Amino acid sequence: MSDYQVTILGSGSALSNIQTFHSAQVLKMNSKRFLIDAGEGVQIRLRQYHQKILAINHIFISHLHGDHCLGLPGLISSLGMMGRTAPLFIHAHADLEKVMGEMIRYFCADSPFDINFVSYNPYHAEEIYSDRTISVTTVPLKHRVPTCGFVFREKNKERHLNRALAESYEVPIAFYKNLKNGEDFVTPDGRVIANDRLTTPPSHAHSFAYISDTAYLEKIVPLIENVDCLYHEATYLSTDDDRIRKTQHSSAAQAATIAKMANVGKLIIGHHSSRYNSYMPFIEEAKAIFPNTFSALDGTRIEF
Amino acid sequence: MSDYQVTILGSGSALSNIQTFHSAQVLKMNSKRFLIDAGEGVQIRLRQYHQKILAINHIFISHLHGDHCLGLPGLISSLGMMGRTAPLFIHAHADLEKVMGEMIRYFCADSPFDINFVSYNPYHAEEIYSDRTISVTTVPLKHRVPTCGFVFREKNKERHLNRALAESYEVPIAFYKNLKNGEDFVTPDGRVIANDRLTTPPSHAHSFAYISDTAYLEKIVPLIENVDCLYHEATYLSTDDDRIRKTQHSSAAQAATIAKMANVGKLIIGHHSSRYNSYMPFIEEAKAIFPNTFSALDGTRIEF
Repeated sequence: MSDYQVTILGSGSALSNIQTFHSAQVLKMNSKRFLIDAGEGVQIRLRQYHQKILAINHIFISHLHGDHCLGLPGLISSLGMMGRTAPLFIHAHADLEKVMGEMIRYFCADSPFDINFVSYNPYHAEEIYSDRTISVTTVPLKHRVPTCGFVFREKNKERHLNRALAESYEVPIAFYKNLKNGEDFVTPDGRVIANDRLTTPPSHAHSFAYISDTAYLEKIVPLIENVDCLYHEATYLSTDDDRIRKTQHSSAAQAATIAKMANVGKLIIGHHSSRYNSYMPFIEEAKAIFPNTFSALDGTRIEF
Repeated sequence: MSDYQVTILGSGSALSNIQTFHSAQVLKMNSKRFLIDAGEGVQIRLRQYHQKILAINHIFISHLHGDHCLGLPGLISSLGMMGRTAPLFIHAHADLEKVMGEMIRYFCADSPFDINFVSYNPYHAEEIYSDRTISVTTVPLKHRVPTCGFVFREKNKERHLNRALAESYEVPIAFYKNLKNGEDFVTPDGRVIANDRLTTPPSHAHSFAYISDTAYLEKIVPLIENVDCLYHEATYLSTDDDRIRKTQHSSAAQAATIAKMANVGKLIIGHHSSRYNSYMPFIEEAKAIFPNTFSALDGTRIEF
């Protein structure tokens, strides 16, 4: 299994059809797993797709429309029954705790773990999560209610030390950290050993961006630039321009245009309206602009 | 399609496995459709099993454990998007509105129909619904929280009038209603025409009982006596007697014993614990006591 992948748990839009559940994805970045959005039935999909449910400690909710968060109470209730003890963090608009808190407290009264609602300001791009290796920042979007996308980036990685060479130059072990950070080594007699003699470049810092739901919004491009993989909603086809304007969603072509402008590695599109009975025209419309596009069908696992 | 049938939308217990959704059933009694319990994902199952979602006007919730009602917000939200205008009635413990009302109002703010929470007293058997043809009464159960089952009975039907004979005896049309109710007809010259000369017996008044969740409880027997079809939870096998006592659930054998004592037509069992990976031992245990037993697998449609 790849260390960097996203699994689509639900790809449907608000009034989903028979095959698709509502929005939810599990992002795996190295050993970490994050849940992004939690539409109804997310706990069912997590089991169906054999995800490590208890390994998820942080959930990121893009906005408070039912199809992006109504799976939270059931998921939290099941986590309790599964014996979870580690605290759970839910990053969302401040209203989430107000509208769902009482219900969660009622149905999950016996939960043996702490549930922490962490609110973010949906109007400013900001870092809302950071650990030793990964940083998550918000991407304010344009929708009918306050909405944010999320960018997950591995932090700058250290260079790889050639330990045998370092030993042969008698570099003190205390200086290894400096080598990994790119410093040259100066021997006691003043000779400079260039860093790239002793180290090789760090491995790639992976990145993923999740953009849903939003009208076409070019100003997000700098925030998601060069990510390895971008999920961007594509609720409609370009021909449906009336609906696109009215509902503040994007077309497949608009998602692809953003992907191209942001120079991302690959694009995943989903959240197609149930008005359409095939995802093929979406893929065709997007690929004409950004060829490396994939469909977010439920159950799809995409590596990056 | 039979006029009297129940479709199992979800048959799993609290921590369901991959195949089963949480508790929910659609009961069709003649032209009426009722939803009984509404576990998470009920709106998905209603679509998957091609149920007439907008024909459901009354929802009956047995108790406020998450696996029996967490599908309500999503269902109500979708009903709004489907353009429902008819009022919806949710019969449940009074706490339901307290814990779920705010969330439903938030996520379904644009719903173009009225949502009416109708509370029942979970400690007394009482009629909680009645229309021209059907009556629904509660069956207080014994579980960790206040819980009720429900009995759906067609009201006593009218006898079938032999119109040609009635005309030949010159029965006034105004008296037809009396004939259908079983009265004899007395001619103007005092002759008594026995009712069964002019009518044939009414067609069968169908009935269905839903019993979940509960410990073994013999006192429910008179309340569900002679129903055509009984759904009774069977969370465990008899061998699991420790768990049965602790969780206040029933075994398959106990469900079958109740069915036998109540002289029901057929028994459906479900809500099996995810500890077991097959429903076969449940069916075997129940059939040894009550042979006409069926499994409530998701998607099963049982006529009665």
